[in-house]
Amino acid sequence: MRQIEKTFGVVLRERREAKRLTQESLAEKAGLHPTYVGLVERGKRSPTLRVARALALALGTTLADLANSAEKELREPSE
Amino acid sequence: MRQIEKTFGVVLRERREAKRLTQESLAEKAGLHPTYVGLVERGKRSPTLRVARALALALGTTLADLANSAEKELREPSE
Repeated sequence: MRQIEKTFGVVLRERREAKRLTQESLAEKAGLHPTYVGLVERGKRSPTLRVARALALALGTTLADLANSAEKELREPSE
Repeated sequence: MRQIEKTFGVVLRERREAKRLTQESLAEKAGLHPTYVGLVERGKRSPTLRVARALALALGTTLADLANSAEKELREPSE
């Protein structure tokens, strides 16, 4: 079974690209290191709630919204 | 400003008590240590997405649901 950090990473990348932000600019907005944002997008890190929410706010949305999309992708994989 | 881990902890405790589960039984269902569940409920740890989702599933709900309640409590504190 895919893990939540995998689908969260996919959702994060989609949302970032939809906003035409680079990993660097998203990282700066969220107060994180660009390398860390890349690791989260690739599902290599399971961020804490605090970090995941900082990323959500930097994208103009909520943690609940990103979690909902990530959990939906776990239930109904689009790929 | 209150942090998400504080309100997540409050929500977690409320939901656990509503299900009449002890910290020990919730921990066992989620595959966590009871001490860790206590720390999360008191807002002393910001769990990873993976752990937060395991807690949600053990309570019969989703991470998005718990995150939504925790973020609502950040926006409109009930206490």
